[in-house]
Amino acid sequence: MKAVQFAAPGASLQIVERDIPDVPRGHVLVKVAANGICHSDSMPAAGMASSYPRTPGHEIAGTIETLGEGVTQWTQGQRVGVGWFGGACFECESCRRGDFVSCQVGKVTGLTADGGYAEYLLAPADALAAIPDALSFAEAAPLMCAGVTTFNGLRHSGARPGDLVAVVGLGGLGHLGVQFAAKMGFETVAIARGAEKESFARELGAHHYIDSTTTDVAAELKRLGGASVVLATVTDAQAMSVTISGLAARGRLVVVGVPHEPLSVSAAALVMGSSSVAGHASGTAKDSEDTLRFAALTGVRPMVETYPLEKAAEGFDRMMSGRARFRVVLTND
Amino acid sequence: MKAVQFAAPGASLQIVERDIPDVPRGHVLVKVAANGICHSDSMPAAGMASSYPRTPGHEIAGTIETLGEGVTQWTQGQRVGVGWFGGACFECESCRRGDFVSCQVGKVTGLTADGGYAEYLLAPADALAAIPDALSFAEAAPLMCAGVTTFNGLRHSGARPGDLVAVVGLGGLGHLGVQFAAKMGFETVAIARGAEKESFARELGAHHYIDSTTTDVAAELKRLGGASVVLATVTDAQAMSVTISGLAARGRLVVVGVPHEPLSVSAAALVMGSSSVAGHASGTAKDSEDTLRFAALTGVRPMVETYPLEKAAEGFDRMMSGRARFRVVLTND
Amino acid sequence: MKAVQFAAPGASLQIVERDIPDVPRGHVLVKVAANGICHSDSMPAAGMASSYPRTPGHEIAGTIETLGEGVTQWTQGQRVGVGWFGGACFECESCRRGDFVSCQVGKVTGLTADGGYAEYLLAPADALAAIPDALSFAEAAPLMCAGVTTFNGLRHSGARPGDLVAVVGLGGLGHLGVQFAAKMGFETVAIARGAEKESFARELGAHHYIDSTTTDVAAELKRLGGASVVLATVTDAQAMSVTISGLAARGRLVVVGVPHEPLSVSAAALVMGSSSVAGHASGTAKDSEDTLRFAALTGVRPMVETYPLEKAAEGFDRMMSGRARFRVVLTND
Amino acid sequence: MKAVQFAAPGASLQIVERDIPDVPRGHVLVKVAANGICHSDSMPAAGMASSYPRTPGHEIAGTIETLGEGVTQWTQGQRVGVGWFGGACFECESCRRGDFVSCQVGKVTGLTADGGYAEYLLAPADALAAIPDALSFAEAAPLMCAGVTTFNGLRHSGARPGDLVAVVGLGGLGHLGVQFAAKMGFETVAIARGAEKESFARELGAHHYIDSTTTDVAAELKRLGGASVVLATVTDAQAMSVTISGLAARGRLVVVGVPHEPLSVSAAALVMGSSSVAGHASGTAKDSEDTLRFAALTGVRPMVETYPLEKAAEGFDRMMSGRARFRVVLTND
Repeated sequence: MKAVQFAAPGASLQIVERDIPDVPRGHVLVKVAANGICHSDSMPAAGMASSYPRTPGHEIAGTIETLGEGVTQWTQGQRVGVGWFGGACFECESCRRGDFVSCQVGKVTGLTADGGYAEYLLAPADALAAIPDALSFAEAAPLMCAGVTTFNGLRHSGARPGDLVAVVGLGGLGHLGVQFAAKMGFETVAIARGAEKESFARELGAHHYIDSTTTDVAAELKRLGGASVVLATVTDAQAMSVTISGLAARGRLVVVGVPHEPLSVSAAALVMGSSSVAGHASGTAKDSEDTLRFAALTGVRPMVETYPLEKAAEGFDRMMSGRARFRVVLTND
Repeated sequence: MKAVQFAAPGASLQIVERDIPDVPRGHVLVKVAANGICHSDSMPAAGMASSYPRTPGHEIAGTIETLGEGVTQWTQGQRVGVGWFGGACFECESCRRGDFVSCQVGKVTGLTADGGYAEYLLAPADALAAIPDALSFAEAAPLMCAGVTTFNGLRHSGARPGDLVAVVGLGGLGHLGVQFAAKMGFETVAIARGAEKESFARELGAHHYIDSTTTDVAAELKRLGGASVVLATVTDAQAMSVTISGLAARGRLVVVGVPHEPLSVSAAALVMGSSSVAGHASGTAKDSEDTLRFAALTGVRPMVETYPLEKAAEGFDRMMSGRARFRVVLTND
Repeated sequence: MKAVQFAAPGASLQIVERDIPDVPRGHVLVKVAANGICHSDSMPAAGMASSYPRTPGHEIAGTIETLGEGVTQWTQGQRVGVGWFGGACFECESCRRGDFVSCQVGKVTGLTADGGYAEYLLAPADALAAIPDALSFAEAAPLMCAGVTTFNGLRHSGARPGDLVAVVGLGGLGHLGVQFAAKMGFETVAIARGAEKESFARELGAHHYIDSTTTDVAAELKRLGGASVVLATVTDAQAMSVTISGLAARGRLVVVGVPHEPLSVSAAALVMGSSSVAGHASGTAKDSEDTLRFAALTGVRPMVETYPLEKAAEGFDRMMSGRARFRVVLTND
Repeated sequence: MKAVQFAAPGASLQIVERDIPDVPRGHVLVKVAANGICHSDSMPAAGMASSYPRTPGHEIAGTIETLGEGVTQWTQGQRVGVGWFGGACFECESCRRGDFVSCQVGKVTGLTADGGYAEYLLAPADALAAIPDALSFAEAAPLMCAGVTTFNGLRHSGARPGDLVAVVGLGGLGHLGVQFAAKMGFETVAIARGAEKESFARELGAHHYIDSTTTDVAAELKRLGGASVVLATVTDAQAMSVTISGLAARGRLVVVGVPHEPLSVSAAALVMGSSSVAGHASGTAKDSEDTLRFAALTGVRPMVETYPLEKAAEGFDRMMSGRARFRVVLTND
């Protein structure tokens, strides 16, 4: 089988030929049809994988080729997705509480095991999400990380239908976040850089658009009534923290992007507004399944550019350039 | 009547003779029996009052002397407290939602109206809390701010009985926070500076003590299982933010003290732990009433040093010195 | 002014001429443009009003004609609605907690004060909701009770976007509930009597339809995955309680209709499913305002039949017959 | 090994000699030290076990004798408990959401597998709870069902510290529920039959006692301010439903006992009070572990009568008679 890998920290992506792996107990072999490229796919290059060579990729859609021993709830040929969540340990404190996302073992697809830049992928059965027929593989793939992160972050944000909800950023995550927010019945604000993105934001369902290059974001949010929730999909700490003053009373800044520098948070602003800043990790396989179902139900779709697996390095560079609209997906024919 | 005031920003406290004010519609005149001194009583000196001269004081306990027109649910002679919350406007967005603490008018006792360093106080009826017989005036007074802030912060923190809950600081707020946490059934950790405070912390009900001058606070919290909630009563931003890494999965740092410098918050820590940093404002008059009832029910009491009103300046200096154990209360005979 | 009243318990509606009332402190006089008729408008006829004669009507839309003393946040000529919630007392235990819906005084428009079957209406300022320009008076009126009840019941139900949510009944409340549920991003099930209503239910946004005359409702809900929430808008106790077995784990039956006979609830079903049965009261004026805004934002509209005020009795009979599609609204020219 | 069993539906308990079972993958063999007798131990006699003969018992405390293959987080000799929760399937809809209590496979100790009336017990590793040293085996055993049910029911009830919480019944569950409620900082009401139980209720920590044979329970709860939560541990439907009118606004009746007849619930009472009736199932192994820790931390202890395993039938009859104070525990020397 063909696979694309980082041979070592600092290496570039290279395509290699590799044996199709045996399928251990509790696992399945997935024939990969599509794999979305995420900014965090650069983590193995930065030395953050558990071992090398490492195949990145955690936005995977495909079909089950082989079932390992003890796997009973899935069937051969079934359409499935695999995301960042690489399976639970079921034994740690968090797993015993049913909080698989917080599993202390921390299995991550494409970091602690090989990911989806390949023709085949091994995955634990509990890392699988069923894909509804209404979604193509290329549509489903980005929903496995960019999708579940924003969908799940919004549905657990505490915002209620009709509340003012802002999404910071209009990239891979943000263009899905805006759609999800609108379909959840939020009065939706898109915040991005540049006036030219307004019409696109409105096509996605945004009721308001704030160009952060020319507008005082917090003041504008306050003028609109104050945001119950701001979902920050960018990796610019400053762009996140400025929104805190634009929160409504008891509002919440939900952080899903991870900037390198720390957020600078005014305690006075938090206390006076009874507001909060909360991190949101992606989601479990079941959360992804909920995301896929919601997208199928409501018409939310990622916008993607596709590249064949052979051109993975090119697609990767395109995604990292920040110019892709809005997610690059590798496809296998 | 005698009253103590800041004549202007930057002035020192002075005692003056003043007329007893008339009682407007919807207000009551309270004969002040005791008034706790809070660090934020220095705010009028710092120029943050709405007008001058201004009498500070927002931890008031006394009896109702006179009822204004339209006040029907209180009676003359009733024992009542008044705290930071200076009454709601009932008309703003927040008040219309019943969220009086977030009232956009922001009436604050001792800042936007004269406070409790006096023999008499005017207060809107909706700023009153009934004091149970089991509490003396000197015990009740500090519960009107230091008490309700910690009690209310803890009961709304999301922590459940048996959860590990840490209180940072053992001063006016912290020594109440530790007692409340223990009486709420939390596995309680007191965090303060110096080994000598451990035995006192345990007397207050703490199950664990961390001396932050010699111990890695976050590591120790993690060793204990991770804190579901950290209640930060100090005004040292660094002492607050270091605890974030000691939170359990989905843990929350609740900020009630307000440092001047911003908190430095790692987005990665928040995201990986699905954790959050939340501000908590004091509470309404009804929240204070709940606090008083809880204290009466469970035996939580502030430790106080008392000064007569005439010695308000001395008591104020004592409180600001940080050496009071743990709240200075002004009393009128 | 013209007004329609029940002269005494058991009496029929009669139209009378009456003086326009003076406007007390804290109140406004509303020139009524439209008034929706609700089944509970029969309560004064059943002897449940506080005094007689009594003008019913609690789904009111109009404009402010006169402002009483002390009313500052509203303006003459402003478009406003008034619903079941007749204002808070601000003094009882519930009001002090900001829970105005649970006010122990219990002021109800059209029951404890005259309602909207009239040319003019007196209302406390805190009972007013602003009407967005996008809604006509006839559209806004039914949203003040049928609307807020279902919108508010759904947004506080605990259901999250994508969850399976069923609405029992397709009448005045139900036809709004289905629209709201769909616009909130729920996978929406409409449950009603008769196959002929399916296409209408789907036009309203329902993803599934269950004809309760021919289908085992609970079994069908279970087949769809189990309902996270069932919103019961009917007044048939049996039609409500049968849905309990169709709830998903931790599901909730939200009761907004009030049948005469008690619900028969299996404790075993509740315990095994960790499920619940919850009552939901309508909402405050601010909740109504949220409802109106949400309808304006998402396109939710009541379907109404209009009658002039003079034909109030005829419109009332039409509504009580159960044949109206789906709300009768009285209009003043 | 000795074991006690129901040979068939309708049979009496008999003691038998049986081989110690082999330990399958993922399981452990527990040497039983103590086993509490619960009223639901009569379910196998009533034909509700999955197969026969069946050894009842789901309040088990003992030590791990043998670890099965793949069990890594437990050690031989460790003190553990096993309760009603007989392990998760990890594959159904509920388990995939981390909601193990709602597992659709529904493994129940002593019903779908042999339970604790024996010298040894097989249990899946995920059904184990660690027992703190502070608790004896005889103390720990009843906490595995009567304890976790009441502790977990209360901590998830929505009641906050200081709230009025009532416990209906003072038997095996109730005498623990009252202790837990008091240690959680609730203003605790015990409700039982007979004036003679008052002093005992107060020893357990109750602040108020209601003798339901002579007092109008709902009226008395209302007089005390209304209960935020009523925890109903009895199996008398009428004793449960009468408390609904004694709930505070937004109060909740939490049902943990399961009467045969359905509850009769007034929809009007639920709607007017925005109140609810909720079922609460026991808890997972981790919930039990939390219960044990809380008991060790706060001093909550069951009161038990002990019988040697050989006298299981006698102990069973004693428990079913309703005269035991308050839990019968079988012990192995």
